[in-house]
Amino acid sequence: MRIHVILLAICSILFLSFSSQKTQKTVADPIDEKVKELLSKMTLEEKIGQMTQITITALEEKGNPGVLDKNKLKEAIQKYKIGSILNVPNPGAPTTQRWNEILNEILEQTNQTSNKIPIIYGIDAIHGANYTAGSTLFPQQIGMAATWDTELVEECTAISAYETRASSIPWVFSPDLDLPRNPNWSRFWESFGEDTYLSSQMGVAMVKGFQGDNVGNNDRVAACIKHFIGYGSTTTGKDRTPSIIPERILRQYDLPIYKKSIEAGAKSIMISSGEINGVPVHASKKLITDVLKKELGFTGIVVTDWQDIIYLHTRHKVAATMREAVKKSVLAGIDMSMVPDNYTFYEELLALVKDGEVPMSRIDDAVSRILKVKFELDLFITPVTDPKKYPDFASESSAELAYKAASESITLLKNENSILPISKNKKILVTGATANSMKYLNGGWSYTWQGENSDKYAQEKFTILEAFQNKIGKQNVSFAEGVSIEKEIDIEKAVKLASTVDYIILCLGEHNYTETPGDINELKITAPQVKLAKALSKVNKPVILILNEGRPRLINDFEKDMHAVLQSYLPGNEGARAIVDVVYGDVNPSGKLPYNYPRFSNSLQKYNRKYTESLGDSEQNDDAEYQKSYNPQYEFGFGLSYTAFEYKNLSINKEKISKSDELVISVDVKNVGDLKGKEVVQLYITDVYASITPEVKSLKRFTKIELSPGETKTVKFTITKDDLGFVNEDNNWVVEEGDFEIMINNFKKKFAFE
Amino acid sequence: MRIHVILLAICSILFLSFSSQKTQKTVADPIDEKVKELLSKMTLEEKIGQMTQITITALEEKGNPGVLDKNKLKEAIQKYKIGSILNVPNPGAPTTQRWNEILNEILEQTNQTSNKIPIIYGIDAIHGANYTAGSTLFPQQIGMAATWDTELVEECTAISAYETRASSIPWVFSPDLDLPRNPNWSRFWESFGEDTYLSSQMGVAMVKGFQGDNVGNNDRVAACIKHFIGYGSTTTGKDRTPSIIPERILRQYDLPIYKKSIEAGAKSIMISSGEINGVPVHASKKLITDVLKKELGFTGIVVTDWQDIIYLHTRHKVAATMREAVKKSVLAGIDMSMVPDNYTFYEELLALVKDGEVPMSRIDDAVSRILKVKFELDLFITPVTDPKKYPDFASESSAELAYKAASESITLLKNENSILPISKNKKILVTGATANSMKYLNGGWSYTWQGENSDKYAQEKFTILEAFQNKIGKQNVSFAEGVSIEKEIDIEKAVKLASTVDYIILCLGEHNYTETPGDINELKITAPQVKLAKALSKVNKPVILILNEGRPRLINDFEKDMHAVLQSYLPGNEGARAIVDVVYGDVNPSGKLPYNYPRFSNSLQKYNRKYTESLGDSEQNDDAEYQKSYNPQYEFGFGLSYTAFEYKNLSINKEKISKSDELVISVDVKNVGDLKGKEVVQLYITDVYASITPEVKSLKRFTKIELSPGETKTVKFTITKDDLGFVNEDNNWVVEEGDFEIMINNFKKKFAFE
Repeated sequence: MRIHVILLAICSILFLSFSSQKTQKTVADPIDEKVKELLSKMTLEEKIGQMTQITITALEEKGNPGVLDKNKLKEAIQKYKIGSILNVPNPGAPTTQRWNEILNEILEQTNQTSNKIPIIYGIDAIHGANYTAGSTLFPQQIGMAATWDTELVEECTAISAYETRASSIPWVFSPDLDLPRNPNWSRFWESFGEDTYLSSQMGVAMVKGFQGDNVGNNDRVAACIKHFIGYGSTTTGKDRTPSIIPERILRQYDLPIYKKSIEAGAKSIMISSGEINGVPVHASKKLITDVLKKELGFTGIVVTDWQDIIYLHTRHKVAATMREAVKKSVLAGIDMSMVPDNYTFYEELLALVKDGEVPMSRIDDAVSRILKVKFELDLFITPVTDPKKYPDFASESSAELAYKAASESITLLKNENSILPISKNKKILVTGATANSMKYLNGGWSYTWQGENSDKYAQEKFTILEAFQNKIGKQNVSFAEGVSIEKEIDIEKAVKLASTVDYIILCLGEHNYTETPGDINELKITAPQVKLAKALSKVNKPVILILNEGRPRLINDFEKDMHAVLQSYLPGNEGARAIVDVVYGDVNPSGKLPYNYPRFSNSLQKYNRKYTESLGDSEQNDDAEYQKSYNPQYEFGFGLSYTAFEYKNLSINKEKISKSDELVISVDVKNVGDLKGKEVVQLYITDVYASITPEVKSLKRFTKIELSPGETKTVKFTITKDDLGFVNEDNNWVVEEGDFEIMINNFKKKFAFE
Repeated sequence: MRIHVILLAICSILFLSFSSQKTQKTVADPIDEKVKELLSKMTLEEKIGQMTQITITALEEKGNPGVLDKNKLKEAIQKYKIGSILNVPNPGAPTTQRWNEILNEILEQTNQTSNKIPIIYGIDAIHGANYTAGSTLFPQQIGMAATWDTELVEECTAISAYETRASSIPWVFSPDLDLPRNPNWSRFWESFGEDTYLSSQMGVAMVKGFQGDNVGNNDRVAACIKHFIGYGSTTTGKDRTPSIIPERILRQYDLPIYKKSIEAGAKSIMISSGEINGVPVHASKKLITDVLKKELGFTGIVVTDWQDIIYLHTRHKVAATMREAVKKSVLAGIDMSMVPDNYTFYEELLALVKDGEVPMSRIDDAVSRILKVKFELDLFITPVTDPKKYPDFASESSAELAYKAASESITLLKNENSILPISKNKKILVTGATANSMKYLNGGWSYTWQGENSDKYAQEKFTILEAFQNKIGKQNVSFAEGVSIEKEIDIEKAVKLASTVDYIILCLGEHNYTETPGDINELKITAPQVKLAKALSKVNKPVILILNEGRPRLINDFEKDMHAVLQSYLPGNEGARAIVDVVYGDVNPSGKLPYNYPRFSNSLQKYNRKYTESLGDSEQNDDAEYQKSYNPQYEFGFGLSYTAFEYKNLSINKEKISKSDELVISVDVKNVGDLKGKEVVQLYITDVYASITPEVKSLKRFTKIELSPGETKTVKFTITKDDLGFVNEDNNWVVEEGDFEIMINNFKKKFAFE
């Protein structure tokens, strides 16, 4: 076994980054100076007001949804001096013009305060400016991850930033950097899937897309990475229930995703509503102050999630009073409380500071962070942006970009006898629960929280049925819903119509949801959908299954009878067009699964499993029958194309690398089919032996390339010892000497680290 | 919130126990003296031989199952000087006479070695001397836990000890102290269920039952508690796959079970084949030496599980060579290697000591522990016990005790309109996969590893069908298997017969299994069984469902159509008689579930959940529909009776307790029904607010009482501050000041700890 264990110089790296920051500071950052000056003029009440965030709906007139109550607004801003407002007014999705009016109404109030500190308005812009009517809605994050194209993701996110600013809003609660460990989780689709490296890269792309080079430019917004940390990993998969994550594992798999986005300059971070090992993250000084602020050097705003300080008292029961909840969370390192609809936080914190239980230094730290971002966003100069200056809001080119993202995300999981693409002059039946609604294409966080009104707001966009009708003419498209998500409707009609067509396009999936309302008890796709699929599979016509779902609902009961399976995730407003273009071959699919698609309810394994989860037959005893322990329906990184790619000449530039070496990996990829196509070249590494049981494989690099028929490209990747590390039993990143294996496609190369 | 945090004086308690041990030692334990003397005479080879355990099947003649190969035996004992042999010879379950011959054959060899050190033979006596033909087979552990009667469990275990010694074997690999966190686990039934306190109490009862006051008495055996630690908690539920258990949680929920059995004097411990957080337990110096040997003060033998040192190299891949695997595990604190079929361990360890890589002190520690247990077992005087001296082997009274244990374990989960008990003069249909085989009643570890030959070995015992026939006469019992576990057989016949009888006795469950062959991918009961249940529920005759299963296979698809549900677990050879007597009311059921019986595949929660897993409607938003997050089919501690019990006058002797106080809880329980019956009085405590999110409730005391109709008994429990503790973020046991709540039945009382 390796004798030398080399501690990755995490500490010294951090030290360097701290010192360089310090160097910068001694040159006097003009914004820091402004913050300091302003802070010195503020009363304690003003400071605590800055830390208070209220939902806009709490400021509406009673009985007049969407209309602000002047008195409530005045009270919030002039009496309580609140620093931030969030959320969409009732009944959802104002126009950019209306948003502008709202923001100006707020501005009117802040202009009457002594220091005229602008509020920072925050919004859940999850897949576009989704709380603005008419905005461009992109695929949800899980689909973005499936493109495996970070440049494309950055480009789309820049449009989201632009359209959010066109709505006069400077701050978005995105991207989601959660690492889901249970596919049942109702926010699985808000993540980038199950892999740390893929999520890290995608997170950085979104932070860059939101913030650009200068977040003060008025086409950029401040990002809020979330939900720090471990939120996506509840044991049961139910939202906001306990997570069990040992520190070693948190550091190896969850923390790096945040670290990368923080290094990319993310301006704010939202804390997880969950608890890890019995400690609610909102009450964890260790995680917020010691790890996030000190170790990772995060200098932006730390904001709570919805009502989470209150929940420390009422749900988690780690605080016997509200006062204790406020004290615990502020001392843990919270800078801003998403209250969201009363002033208890304000009052309690005020009293705590006056009573000396929360030091002024903690308050000043929090307020400085908030003011800094406000200065960086240029809110003191341009507190409200003007929608008229955003002519490209919801432009055709933005819609085309959303279409492109959907096209590149769609993942062809099965294509028996190359049944896809099909010809346009065939008759089809479109059927299934998700065939004819924008709700299912968009999912939650679309116009409203749960996304139930997508059909109204996006009525000019195509449902899957409409997109097929538009493509090949209504006369060639039969339709029967067959089932809704939860109920049988007209399965017999669907079966009857099926016998009259050439192909069955079966659209199955999930209803629109997010957060706790999206909790499920069974991962299997709903029973009526299974019934429809089984009924149609008996018709003796090819069935093309189009999945439209936020998480991998199990289809093993009937998958063998499907001739083709397309995963569309939650592809957004332009998704149906993309689906149809893939079906007809106008788009050659290139998406790859960002997660393992499980086959069974109680066999939910990740691709980067340990060897004990994946024993070969040779390892098993011969005196009993064994189930195969690792058995996904489709594996992470998998996705078919209409063309074929051949890998050749995998080579490495040396057999051994040392601490300072780079290992260059090269492979030739050739399009050996007849169609132009895109391929995601994926590099995995395995540590052959290690002091912590090694993973069977772990993604370390990827790139998406396009190849014409017959074309060959040489792809080169460079890795260093830092790519070989893991967190050891003492919670330190280490690289151990010994053998490693590179894997690209099915080819492998061994090398050693010495 | 509580200001004073009182560290439970764990360290000082340990210190005291260490010092008292030291005091004992200075009085010179005669066995320690003998060990020392013998050790001083042993060569290094002899010492390493003592640490080597070989399976008897490796010593059989090729082609002659069950017949020992003299040369192989000679090589093992005279050349390699092995200290232990385990396992049952092929083809399974010798008679006591044959066991005696085998042990004497081995003795013949050890008598020819220089120091004549007897081998210690170890056996998996899991529910009786289950590897001996004709032995008494009790309910499996999960059923024993369901009796909630520790005295009964101790009594049964003493019979197991007696019958094992009647088989000339002095050492059993039992009890199982694993705390399963996933009901899918294939060894779920080998545990005492999901609760730490219940498991602790049951574990102690079994250790006492095996070992008695003096393990050297020839009706007692050395126990081996297993599998230290975290083995039962694999994430996916698949056997021998990774567990994720933070130290805080391991210390709060898993470690106390071992601690109690160690305090009760368990002579040996088997290490978990699993890994915790990436570290295989067999390679964990921290867990084996620091926690087990030093912190808990364990002085017995630490033995590996099957082949587990080899697996460090081949499966876990934490050792690049076999030599490294041996070194790692021996330095971690392993005393004996269950090799099981070659001498690599011996050779490698010999070389390691000679090369100075493993110190002689470690070897001497290991060998001393082994020799000590051999002396304690009196093996130097009586190396082989004589079956003739065990006239009560498989006696009628032992069978009656097994019957009693089964009777007390059977748990009535549903009894619509008091349909049970039924009258003996009605006609019944007995049907279902588990209706007519001893395999399903006994499960794994019965005559053979997987228990596939129970029908042959236990042919004189009753299957469920036979027990019904015996009870009410063959002429009143129709039978159709309906389905096997995996296949439809004659559902139509069953349905047809159902219409001719008064009651349908539907027997469903699982096949016989243990370990990896018992892995499943779906917790739902198998599809053919669901189909039979649904078909029979349409017949319009009352259906009495008898579950015969090691783990709670989901029945929610048809449970509402069952008129009664009886859980029999794996009740052993006398189980069918007990089932039938419950059905006819000759036994009033008194078993209580030792686990939550889940309702849904992806909603597997334990009863001692956190509040966030069990939000009331009041806590939920009103703008979306929510699934109920906590939804077991039947809850931990639940079980009906044919009589009714009324709880009254819950009282406590003080409202506040301090460090040194005892709190006495008293409650009156009255039998308000018409039948004599037994009730398990269960005391739960909840910590109202705590620095680690408190559990909704946690079992702290229980007692089983019997009441005649109209009779009232006052039950008193005493608790102290030690019952209020938990492990905090720093991994220390603490009791925090503040309010607590006592719960018995549905009554609650608050008190404070100050």
